[in-house]
Amino acid sequence: MNFAIVRFILGWVLEFEAGFLLLPLLVGFLYGEVRISLCFAATAALCLLAGVLLKCRKPVKKDLYTREGFATVALSWIVMSAFGALPFLFSGEIPNYVDAVFEAASGFTTTGASILTDVEALSRASLFWRSFTHWIGGMGVFVFIMAILPLIGGGTTINLMRAESTGPAVGKLLPKVRDTAKILYEIYIGLTVVGTVVLCACGLNLFESLTTIFGTVGTGGFGIYNDSVVRFSPLAQNMITLFMVLSGINYTAYFCLLSRRLKDAFSIEEVRWYLGIILGSAAVVAWNIRRLYPTAGESLRHAFFQVGSIMTSTGFSSTDFDTWPQLSKTILILLMFVGACAGSTGGGIKVTRFIILLKAVRKELAMMIHPRLVKKIRVDGHTLAHETLRAVNVFISIYFVLLFASVLLISMDNFGFTTNFTAVLATLSNIGPGLDMVGPTGNYSIFSSFSKLVLIFDMIAGRLELFPMLILFLPSCWKKY
Amino acid sequence: MNFAIVRFILGWVLEFEAGFLLLPLLVGFLYGEVRISLCFAATAALCLLAGVLLKCRKPVKKDLYTREGFATVALSWIVMSAFGALPFLFSGEIPNYVDAVFEAASGFTTTGASILTDVEALSRASLFWRSFTHWIGGMGVFVFIMAILPLIGGGTTINLMRAESTGPAVGKLLPKVRDTAKILYEIYIGLTVVGTVVLCACGLNLFESLTTIFGTVGTGGFGIYNDSVVRFSPLAQNMITLFMVLSGINYTAYFCLLSRRLKDAFSIEEVRWYLGIILGSAAVVAWNIRRLYPTAGESLRHAFFQVGSIMTSTGFSSTDFDTWPQLSKTILILLMFVGACAGSTGGGIKVTRFIILLKAVRKELAMMIHPRLVKKIRVDGHTLAHETLRAVNVFISIYFVLLFASVLLISMDNFGFTTNFTAVLATLSNIGPGLDMVGPTGNYSIFSSFSKLVLIFDMIAGRLELFPMLILFLPSCWKKY
Repeated sequence: MNFAIVRFILGWVLEFEAGFLLLPLLVGFLYGEVRISLCFAATAALCLLAGVLLKCRKPVKKDLYTREGFATVALSWIVMSAFGALPFLFSGEIPNYVDAVFEAASGFTTTGASILTDVEALSRASLFWRSFTHWIGGMGVFVFIMAILPLIGGGTTINLMRAESTGPAVGKLLPKVRDTAKILYEIYIGLTVVGTVVLCACGLNLFESLTTIFGTVGTGGFGIYNDSVVRFSPLAQNMITLFMVLSGINYTAYFCLLSRRLKDAFSIEEVRWYLGIILGSAAVVAWNIRRLYPTAGESLRHAFFQVGSIMTSTGFSSTDFDTWPQLSKTILILLMFVGACAGSTGGGIKVTRFIILLKAVRKELAMMIHPRLVKKIRVDGHTLAHETLRAVNVFISIYFVLLFASVLLISMDNFGFTTNFTAVLATLSNIGPGLDMVGPTGNYSIFSSFSKLVLIFDMIAGRLELFPMLILFLPSCWKKY
Repeated sequence: MNFAIVRFILGWVLEFEAGFLLLPLLVGFLYGEVRISLCFAATAALCLLAGVLLKCRKPVKKDLYTREGFATVALSWIVMSAFGALPFLFSGEIPNYVDAVFEAASGFTTTGASILTDVEALSRASLFWRSFTHWIGGMGVFVFIMAILPLIGGGTTINLMRAESTGPAVGKLLPKVRDTAKILYEIYIGLTVVGTVVLCACGLNLFESLTTIFGTVGTGGFGIYNDSVVRFSPLAQNMITLFMVLSGINYTAYFCLLSRRLKDAFSIEEVRWYLGIILGSAAVVAWNIRRLYPTAGESLRHAFFQVGSIMTSTGFSSTDFDTWPQLSKTILILLMFVGACAGSTGGGIKVTRFIILLKAVRKELAMMIHPRLVKKIRVDGHTLAHETLRAVNVFISIYFVLLFASVLLISMDNFGFTTNFTAVLATLSNIGPGLDMVGPTGNYSIFSSFSKLVLIFDMIAGRLELFPMLILFLPSCWKKY
């Protein structure tokens, strides 16, 4: 591995994190939380210092091959979480460092799982930081840096983007990586601004609107109230549903819309499946929970909200879905696996991987009937590359291995299977709440520090789609050349 | 599809089932259960009649392509279960037909899941039949027929064996299919005879020994007592453990031993992994449950028994493992996925598929570090065929899709997630008992008829390794040609 460039880029990431920390600092000052603001200032200073130290020597070789790209991104996300946890620690709001890292990692990875029992006791600055980490992590910090700076590494920076963006075949929307990063962030900011205005119009104040929309478009799910978004008006909840669903859509669709290729935008197979699954699941859930709520409208609202929230891996809750009938809960568990579209800010295995899988299965069965059949798998009219299919298969295998290995590790805490299974699933797929003891009214404080470390690993591995984190475990990755 | 040959072979299977039914009939007469014996006689007569009717016209074309082979085997197992359930129904011991089919399918597929709350109330003949179905289904009814008769279809009968035998690449041990089938049954009968003698020597009577060993070498798990094998002596339990583990080994190893190729026998990667997993898991479980039992010896005995029982997909219980700590229970759940060796009578995904998967993942990660790497996956020194890897990937994908789809379907009964998840897992992997309400002290009578039908499908699909049952759902499979 080319250690010099990894170190150099890590320095850059920390400098950017120092910049990000100025925002909650400002919020703290605006709300008169001077002591908390100083904690953020101290963290920003530490980040800046570490960043400058790491960047003091420029690397000679500037190539970023897959291994450097993937390892850099994985290490950056770990370091970002480690530093992002410091304000919680310094302020004493989360006195345990592992807990603080859990909260920060949960923020950056847009998981939204919390170890806090009383969110409302937090300062405004910390609440803002929690939600803002969702926004940073949603589209990705490297995508952000690339949109702003001509990053070192030249043409090979695509490897950083490949590691951080979601989906089995990350491509460039525009010939240049930098232009692609820019257009992605433009769409992202566009959604954020429109969402904030809409929520303000629904009666939320600016602070509520901003933090909620950060968690919505980033598909994070940290709320600023203990009951998530239950207290918001039905209209506001429906608007949050709308923006969650919009944020789970493949950003290529928006790009096509912006380039006035309407037909292309509406013919993306994944988006149609995604919307179909949401509609179908919400309909079944609404029917299944019809007796729990006074009106059909309310059942529909909660069904769409919860299905949208889980499918997009956001994790807000409009009601305690742990009390729903088992059919609805099982549907939500299955949606946790599926996740949002590739190329969105959402987590999970991604709809497109399931489409590819389904087509591969269909092909295999067809070949049993017609052994000499020559059939190519096509997605959106293009023949699927053999490598993509292989990568999808390996991805899903690793996903399940990691899922069950983690369930095994955290089972040492002796909680029930439903708790363990959904806790791992909800972190690996970056959802947030699970069921039973980690359900919407529970939280992750029950776990031991060891289990929390396992879940932190799962959150980052899930956000980066497994490979970047796994590559760190290969001894050959660390060989100098 | 060549319907004529499918019909013809189905007739053959039913005639053989009529023959099999004579054994419990005899047992009934020996124990003076005349009324029950008549029920078996009636069923045998029905099977024979149906068999003769189906066989009355010989098929013109005698080729058995993959589709005919797979569809025939799948349909045969369904029909066998449908007829095998009749004695329970006629005798009134299981008054509901769906329940009776569940019990019969659970027997033939060597699952061992029961809908009975009081097994000891059954007649001797029925107890014998339950256990004997394990023995028939363990090695497979087609393997049996092939070993005896020169089956119609000539060289293409390998497709029947491929559908019924376990493992990703079913091969012939000897050049002729018939000789392969013979040698497999010789080993199987050898294990059965030795096992029966050993259990008799441990103090069990002949009836207990025979029924228990049927469930052991067939990796079934139906017991003749309500508490499974709890009442048997520690020595007898340890012997059952030994024979369960022996029955989960790839029969190729025994074939190598018989042909005095000792080195080949002990160098099969899968067998070494299989034994390693059992040893490792049992050690952890024994440590984890050490406080629950008075002596270390007892902890070790239960740990090895339960790990062996679940890993080989047998499902006997020497103690109520649902009361074990969560770590041990989670290990058992993971072993339910893994299952026994390919080419054994055991169920589950099979050890070899996990070995292949692991190697594929390692290759994929290595290719990220050395993109131009040309690396072949090797198992037992041979390069793995591309088709086998693809089939393994598709198999595991379908396995999980079927698992979660079934969990969704049975969740309509509104039982807890642990119950639903382990019930499906324990049927799909042909284990028998799950956890919670379907744990060692529970049973499957709690489910609705619809859920039972889903689980019956899972049992047969799991036993036949998915593809034969799935092919029935392809409309193109039913096209006449």
